[in-house]
Amino acid sequence: MANKQVEKNSITKKSENVSDWYADVIIQSGLADYGPVRGTMILKPYGYALWENVQKALDAMFKSGGVENAYFPMFIPMSLFNKEKSHIEGFSPELAVVTIGGGEQLSEPLAVRPTSEMIMYQEYAKWIHSWRDLPVKINQWNNVVRWEKRTYLFLRTLEFLWQEGHCAHATHEESLEMVLRALDWYRQIYEDFYAIPVVLGVKSQSEKFAGADSTYTVEAIMPDGKALQACTSHDLGQNFSKALSISFQDKNGVSQYVWQNSWGFSTRSLGALFLTHGDDSGLVLPPKVAPIKVAIIPIFGKKDDQVLKYCEKIKQTLTNSPSAYPGRIEIFDDSEKSFGWRVNEAELKGIPIKIAVGIREVQEKAISYSFRLFAMDNKISKFEDLPEKVEQFLSQIQNQMFENAKTILRANTHLVDNYEEFKERMLAGKGFLRAFWCEDVGCEQKIKEETKATTRCRSLDEKEDIGKCVYCGKSAKFRWYFAQAY
Amino acid sequence: MANKQVEKNSITKKSENVSDWYADVIIQSGLADYGPVRGTMILKPYGYALWENVQKALDAMFKSGGVENAYFPMFIPMSLFNKEKSHIEGFSPELAVVTIGGGEQLSEPLAVRPTSEMIMYQEYAKWIHSWRDLPVKINQWNNVVRWEKRTYLFLRTLEFLWQEGHCAHATHEESLEMVLRALDWYRQIYEDFYAIPVVLGVKSQSEKFAGADSTYTVEAIMPDGKALQACTSHDLGQNFSKALSISFQDKNGVSQYVWQNSWGFSTRSLGALFLTHGDDSGLVLPPKVAPIKVAIIPIFGKKDDQVLKYCEKIKQTLTNSPSAYPGRIEIFDDSEKSFGWRVNEAELKGIPIKIAVGIREVQEKAISYSFRLFAMDNKISKFEDLPEKVEQFLSQIQNQMFENAKTILRANTHLVDNYEEFKERMLAGKGFLRAFWCEDVGCEQKIKEETKATTRCRSLDEKEDIGKCVYCGKSAKFRWYFAQAY
Repeated sequence: MANKQVEKNSITKKSENVSDWYADVIIQSGLADYGPVRGTMILKPYGYALWENVQKALDAMFKSGGVENAYFPMFIPMSLFNKEKSHIEGFSPELAVVTIGGGEQLSEPLAVRPTSEMIMYQEYAKWIHSWRDLPVKINQWNNVVRWEKRTYLFLRTLEFLWQEGHCAHATHEESLEMVLRALDWYRQIYEDFYAIPVVLGVKSQSEKFAGADSTYTVEAIMPDGKALQACTSHDLGQNFSKALSISFQDKNGVSQYVWQNSWGFSTRSLGALFLTHGDDSGLVLPPKVAPIKVAIIPIFGKKDDQVLKYCEKIKQTLTNSPSAYPGRIEIFDDSEKSFGWRVNEAELKGIPIKIAVGIREVQEKAISYSFRLFAMDNKISKFEDLPEKVEQFLSQIQNQMFENAKTILRANTHLVDNYEEFKERMLAGKGFLRAFWCEDVGCEQKIKEETKATTRCRSLDEKEDIGKCVYCGKSAKFRWYFAQAY
Repeated sequence: MANKQVEKNSITKKSENVSDWYADVIIQSGLADYGPVRGTMILKPYGYALWENVQKALDAMFKSGGVENAYFPMFIPMSLFNKEKSHIEGFSPELAVVTIGGGEQLSEPLAVRPTSEMIMYQEYAKWIHSWRDLPVKINQWNNVVRWEKRTYLFLRTLEFLWQEGHCAHATHEESLEMVLRALDWYRQIYEDFYAIPVVLGVKSQSEKFAGADSTYTVEAIMPDGKALQACTSHDLGQNFSKALSISFQDKNGVSQYVWQNSWGFSTRSLGALFLTHGDDSGLVLPPKVAPIKVAIIPIFGKKDDQVLKYCEKIKQTLTNSPSAYPGRIEIFDDSEKSFGWRVNEAELKGIPIKIAVGIREVQEKAISYSFRLFAMDNKISKFEDLPEKVEQFLSQIQNQMFENAKTILRANTHLVDNYEEFKERMLAGKGFLRAFWCEDVGCEQKIKEETKATTRCRSLDEKEDIGKCVYCGKSAKFRWYFAQAY
């Protein structure tokens, strides 16, 4: 099905309308489609292959950190859900609820998990008795449901795929270390795999997770100047352990509540990837996660056996070479479609490198290539150089994409010291504004009402300073990141 | 947490009561636990690691067969579900239904998927237009819900993890080839990984999947003489393509309905694994899927640094050696527990090889080992031989387990030619009975009522013959496998 879904490339220009462009690109490149229930999404093979690459990378990080995978049921009895007050308050408006099972009305309705704190931690209470049982570090790869009113493909869907890590520790210090370690794993995926530079920080009290003491966040800026909460890691303190009686005997025989954290990374992150790098011709995927890393495109009117054989030789050579980039090599040989159409298709799908093969290449034993990221046609004149050159190109493209995205981040980050400028910039809807804020929820609220900008985070790099709140003028210690957000 | 969950090994003897033994072993070895909702199960890290090993093996097979992974939403509108008559009739008594979303009553209730035919195939109808779009071969790794009245850990749970493959082809021949290919992948997992010999066959009309033309099955016999439907692969014919209008233009420009198949392999299979190989001391896991392949057990009262260092050296040496067996190497060094307790723990968990390390081993630079499968204590006198020897042992154990299970299968399979013997054997509840059956549903029904035995399958190896139905005496062409089943 690879190259047969789109009869012609008719996507909206990104420069004209980002949100139309976004939906067009996702549907037409074959990443995903709308499900029959409002707000649900079908992750098609091309989109799912991206997620598999991310899963593989993250899963290896988790395992290196001693985190084990497990699976907990998705149905949570409402009575269990109600045990942590701020948690249920935060999630109850978003729940899908099963009321019928096996043809009968259930005596107790079941929530479909929006997240698994409650169902996991009630089990932790049974597992943990002594300091010797700690830490518990468990991750789940699963699906969750949040009944969102407004949905977007990938960025906000009713059901989505993610991982959720849930740890219990003997001390707050150890728990906080885990919170930050998870945050750094996520940073690595964004920066080293997605080629998206991010800001790591802590959320304000009003923006934190329902049930957390503090929420740490990875924030990214999209090319349209809107911020995206890329993923989060929560310091849950002892809120859940007190609500569910998860306690242990410490080394001195004293009973203590455990310190907990949870952290999640979802298919939402792929939305950031498409938005950041895509262009008017479609997706632009970084080599580290691209499901197809090289498209080999034969130039022919009718099928030409010599040409196809040479394509196959290139494919085999690249497939069999060791590579730091996990994508497949594919031949785009649908003879029903013109060469130009097939080139467009490879562009739409964001494949990093294209290799065009005509009779001339066969005769010269050469390779003609071009890049998706920037215009650049060239030849490799010795076939033996192919694997090494392609590996170099992929690395070069990956780095260049990261540099480009850093430029976007820089161009969209502004130091702002007065509210007039703040409002003006926000009226244009543009970027991260770094402004002093007194940390009073009243000012945060007013700023949101007047400019649609929310506090994104206080960066972990931010040093304490002497400043004045951009809104009320009272003394403030830190600059915060503000932005309008997806 | 590895070796801290069980204070003492107090499992029921398998020989005394298989079902009590089964639940004890699963809970106490740390494979799984009961979820808070009746019939749901928590797959703990040890149990999930087994499933990950199976996933990895199956996923590689699927990909080698050109099957791509994807993800479809789990909520299916009831109106969509109702479009294939026999499908909805089969599944409606087992549905969990969401009626509330985001705090409001839904205008249309949503079924939580018990299987994904309907939601996938309505999408296939949009994807498939021409013979060039075929075949479509897609797999999902996901969770499904079936509201079962009687549940058992692993064998029958309300929610379970599985994969479901769903293909569409231009011809029935090609589709049937895929049905059998999937069946053979499953056979490989059972025989080569689980070390369980199986019978491949076709189900009777009354036992087939709701919506299928024919259901192909993998059947196994448990040591108590009860059969287990290990997994199935369905020839769906054109039933769904006609109900959902999935048609294509063939090479002659004629519109045709596609031919479809679906096939699934679930965590239920792990129940068969535990039942087949376990013994009075706990699990016995085959090396190919065992999450821990070697348990290194230091012999000490108090911690001994020299001994621990030597354990670490053994662990590193084995971890760094290439191996056909994917499990971890773990040191059981909980100094709060006696050496004997830790040996029992390794036995309970079914770890194929144990290595005991005392001061004598350190001084002699030797390795003392024993096997889980059969009593056998011995020494490797040269440290350098360790990796090769362990690899040999693992292979030897894997083969021996398969041989043992073959003996069980043989001992539990009986050729039966008269109904008196049939009834007697079934009264004892024992094994597969291979008997001629006229294929009349009335006889099948009567046999079930009178003996609790159901038709398991007609083996693919069964040759046509001349015989008499074991029940009615009318002429019959094939012997069928009958058994009482889990």
